[in-house]
Amino acid sequence: MADINSPVEIGVTTGPIRGSRKVHVGARTGSGIRVAMREIDLEGGEPSVRVYDTSGPYTDPNAHIDINAGLAPIRRDWILARGDVEAYDGREVKPEDNGRLGPDRSGGVPQYPNAIKRPLRAKAGMNVSQMHYARRGIITPEMEYVAERENLGREIAADLIRDGESWGAEIPDVITPEFVRSEVARGRAIIPSNINHPESEPMAIGRNFLVKINANIGNSAVASDVAQEVDKMVWATRWGADTIMDLSTGRNIHDTREWIIRNSPVPIGTVPIYQALEKVGGIAEELTWEIFRDTLIEQAEQGVDYFTIHAGVRLPYIPMTAKRVTGIVSRGGSIMAKWCLAHHKESFLYEHFDEITEIMKAYDIAYSLGDGLRPGSIADANDEAQFAELYTLGELTKRAWEQDVQVMIEGPGHVPMHKIKQNMEKQLEACGEAPFYTLGPLVTDIAPGYDHITSGIGAAQIGWYGTAMLCYVTPKEHLGLPDRDDVKVGVVTYKLAAHAADLAKGHPAAQVRDDALSKARFEFRWRDQFNLSLDPETAEQYHDQTLPAEGAKSAHFCSMCGPKFCSMKITQEVRDFAAKQNAGIETFVASEAEAEAGMAEMSAKYHEVGRQLYVGAGDREHD
Amino acid sequence: MADINSPVEIGVTTGPIRGSRKVHVGARTGSGIRVAMREIDLEGGEPSVRVYDTSGPYTDPNAHIDINAGLAPIRRDWILARGDVEAYDGREVKPEDNGRLGPDRSGGVPQYPNAIKRPLRAKAGMNVSQMHYARRGIITPEMEYVAERENLGREIAADLIRDGESWGAEIPDVITPEFVRSEVARGRAIIPSNINHPESEPMAIGRNFLVKINANIGNSAVASDVAQEVDKMVWATRWGADTIMDLSTGRNIHDTREWIIRNSPVPIGTVPIYQALEKVGGIAEELTWEIFRDTLIEQAEQGVDYFTIHAGVRLPYIPMTAKRVTGIVSRGGSIMAKWCLAHHKESFLYEHFDEITEIMKAYDIAYSLGDGLRPGSIADANDEAQFAELYTLGELTKRAWEQDVQVMIEGPGHVPMHKIKQNMEKQLEACGEAPFYTLGPLVTDIAPGYDHITSGIGAAQIGWYGTAMLCYVTPKEHLGLPDRDDVKVGVVTYKLAAHAADLAKGHPAAQVRDDALSKARFEFRWRDQFNLSLDPETAEQYHDQTLPAEGAKSAHFCSMCGPKFCSMKITQEVRDFAAKQNAGIETFVASEAEAEAGMAEMSAKYHEVGRQLYVGAGDREHD
Repeated sequence: MADINSPVEIGVTTGPIRGSRKVHVGARTGSGIRVAMREIDLEGGEPSVRVYDTSGPYTDPNAHIDINAGLAPIRRDWILARGDVEAYDGREVKPEDNGRLGPDRSGGVPQYPNAIKRPLRAKAGMNVSQMHYARRGIITPEMEYVAERENLGREIAADLIRDGESWGAEIPDVITPEFVRSEVARGRAIIPSNINHPESEPMAIGRNFLVKINANIGNSAVASDVAQEVDKMVWATRWGADTIMDLSTGRNIHDTREWIIRNSPVPIGTVPIYQALEKVGGIAEELTWEIFRDTLIEQAEQGVDYFTIHAGVRLPYIPMTAKRVTGIVSRGGSIMAKWCLAHHKESFLYEHFDEITEIMKAYDIAYSLGDGLRPGSIADANDEAQFAELYTLGELTKRAWEQDVQVMIEGPGHVPMHKIKQNMEKQLEACGEAPFYTLGPLVTDIAPGYDHITSGIGAAQIGWYGTAMLCYVTPKEHLGLPDRDDVKVGVVTYKLAAHAADLAKGHPAAQVRDDALSKARFEFRWRDQFNLSLDPETAEQYHDQTLPAEGAKSAHFCSMCGPKFCSMKITQEVRDFAAKQNAGIETFVASEAEAEAGMAEMSAKYHEVGRQLYVGAGDREHD
Repeated sequence: MADINSPVEIGVTTGPIRGSRKVHVGARTGSGIRVAMREIDLEGGEPSVRVYDTSGPYTDPNAHIDINAGLAPIRRDWILARGDVEAYDGREVKPEDNGRLGPDRSGGVPQYPNAIKRPLRAKAGMNVSQMHYARRGIITPEMEYVAERENLGREIAADLIRDGESWGAEIPDVITPEFVRSEVARGRAIIPSNINHPESEPMAIGRNFLVKINANIGNSAVASDVAQEVDKMVWATRWGADTIMDLSTGRNIHDTREWIIRNSPVPIGTVPIYQALEKVGGIAEELTWEIFRDTLIEQAEQGVDYFTIHAGVRLPYIPMTAKRVTGIVSRGGSIMAKWCLAHHKESFLYEHFDEITEIMKAYDIAYSLGDGLRPGSIADANDEAQFAELYTLGELTKRAWEQDVQVMIEGPGHVPMHKIKQNMEKQLEACGEAPFYTLGPLVTDIAPGYDHITSGIGAAQIGWYGTAMLCYVTPKEHLGLPDRDDVKVGVVTYKLAAHAADLAKGHPAAQVRDDALSKARFEFRWRDQFNLSLDPETAEQYHDQTLPAEGAKSAHFCSMCGPKFCSMKITQEVRDFAAKQNAGIETFVASEAEAEAGMAEMSAKYHEVGRQLYVGAGDREHD
């Protein structure tokens, strides 16, 4: 057996995503804050395109990556400068934190060499949440970072006419630090940022910002190890995961989490009840508030940025699930339901909610109020149990806000398309516009193996309606644990769903990338088309399967239609033809007069059509 | 070189889809018509589930499959019995039909051994379209077949409360042959059924029927051969393609098509202008009405069931595309645009439209009026050119209907989510509810390699809004020609999108399969879960990657959560716990009285919520 306390080799993918480079953009406030972005350079004199970058230093060839040392604590100075935190001797790691391992930790994963020993917490009586600062009118460096990050491309897009249906979102033309502050202050956005996770690059979750995505990773008692999980985290952020949830169960939970957090450039979320359950040997009835509380402190000190807390699974709601097709499908929800029933008592999470909030504000951990009673099938969507819990989550949101603690709300699940909008509307109403964070939803149950797609359909729609973050689903959902390839497919699928939502909401800069890619496609700039895509490697690989020759990268056709049938080529010819005639494209029609008459007729017709008048068969000449 | 006129070995996939068997259900009219369906038997005494089956005899172990002989002409007797057709000496196959091949056909594909030599056509003055019969009050065997096929599962679902938002569709509880007739008569549905393709099993495309999907296959000048294309056709229908479009270009078009049609259990569509263009050496300007007309006859005699005709690309609309980001992206559209401009003339398709209709009615070929000016990028969606053409397609629809010829309308393309509904609304209005048949639409341009998903999102939505058939997009879209795996992924993606649309529309029987699968999932009947899914093989394979042991197929947990964290297992325990107490689940709460109070409170709250009242934080007790 290898010495598990010596540094281990954990391989992660580094280096730029092909066709792009890391840039650091100084905040326009002049504060010296530099925001990481990815820039895609194009051919033919086209302006480069900047895209949002979640990949952290891993894609920066100038960064030194050492998994055993962790990422640089870029937020540390900002946190300390506020003067409201203190370092203290952290809680000792106990054997049960890693699943009752013996002192020699045999069979476990190696301890993280650079674990935090002296974590930070708020000084007595202080509150270090971003919401607390925001409500006192303070613009933090985190807010400034977010503003610059979200502003991406808005100058390029300044001339574009905004076009979308935002369903009541209020997306400004330009994101200022003050706008970020005001959104956080009113609870409409959160910046998950535990003071013990200074390695993370600030990001915002809220319906007036870009739609975000989360990727779940985590081992289970059955499969996966720490090296795989760290690799998956880096891999998921490489392709666009805005946050990562570590859903590990089984043994080694504590140590696995430390490896992940110290190396994560994005916020990390967890479901603390999973670890608490491990500590009581998997017997839900033996859970206690004390064990749960101790687990929160343990994870708070490690730097978890948001906690899923299933405090809305209240005793009286549990009978509402008895006649469901799929009962309770949330792991946390079912654990709490079992506890409540076994003890004939109200949930200890609900009873101790304000005490949990006290912990959250001492570390700036955001709530992700869990939907323990979410529907697990089309049959159970939008039922009484689901909405009863949602309204309780709304009540808890307001209680958390009373202590200036950041909150988002988790949502379903499995919902047919015609019931999706109601979820968003009720959430906005019940939870005072706290950010909604949904899993999918899956719009049908009949496609296991393709549930990244069944859920991507629902995710794009609910993102459009106002959901702030979409929790990805991989092709393995319902069947097994995702591997590296599944993680990538899940992330890219959700990235495209989130982007489709941004487009439909009329986000001012969203269409810049679509237009650049479509222009590249039309002009046969194949490399630009690949590089602008969410997954350049797959795009190129698919192209090369049919036309592998390097010359084909500049060919003015592709394998789908061949040279004669290429519509884009023909359209180019049409334009060239026009140019030769030196008289603009209108001269193609028989005469100038005819052209103008035709145009005028159609213009008139078009405007009629725009006014929804019926155009019958007999209304028009057939010339 | 092999003798290309001898029978060839073309391998196709045969045998039942796992966990299911072919059944033939007699029409309840007692006419003796037997409709092929697929039945999935379940474990544990659960009733079997019947599903719509597009796979033809290939999944029937009792059928004799001989690709060189073709499928049995199951409609032949019905067609002859009507007494309105005559067999005649068909048009001689010319060298240019296969791309100017010499008489020895070297380099070509083998001639089909069982090609139709004496095709059928309507007797002089007769009209053999299903619409013509329908309008005269005749219920054809094709209509009867469709009724039985669409009725699938409606008895099982009779107790279900219908739930959906159908956006004005009028889906009856039970589909009668008379309903089919009336929908065809008013043009709201079509049954594509060329009298020279008697091998196809009747199916309907219309918004009051199940949403259908089409799969495109076809070689290009660059890649693919006839064996591959026949295999893809069988493969696509195995997984659920309701129709197939053969989009072959390059050489061997005629012979490739014959192989496909003779072996296809589903309707075949083509774009005749592609072949016409081959006949003039790829030079659009040299196209003539005569060559096009001859091509229509050629394909009509072979048995093509619907023709895409881009007659809406009119001369005055072409300048409207000049400022687009991606110009004209339809191959047929760009060919016609080039022709119009080169000749300074109105499109010959538009000018000769009524003559085309004369041909259509002699063979019962349906129009698929092509959207030659569809947007090829988000930037170009819903623009003047697109809608100008759409209203012309509406005009042409009415002209076709004057001759009782069936029509559907092709739609976009690339459309952001907020502009999708307008497409459906304008189509319904402009085209008198003729079935809409859309390609996707793709809701963003930035994900080449994943365009089955970007388009699946749009397809599910437009299907919900009323589109009758969704043309699939594969992962290779924009990049290369789909291979077998791509075809399957495309078909399954579109199948789930179509099913999601059926669910959302409130189709009476759609949810039966979701419920059966979810129940199987909840009860850990893994094999049933696989078998009920759209792709049982992939579902099982994914499961087995983490838990390959056969014992795991009956395990009461899975690899995602492991045994302790399985919410479904815990919910089962909750139910068992309840059963032991012998007093129903309500006794879990502290007392009967409390339970009832809790229930009553929540019930009241729920009804309030249903009435959209705001439930503020202070409105409720925190017990």
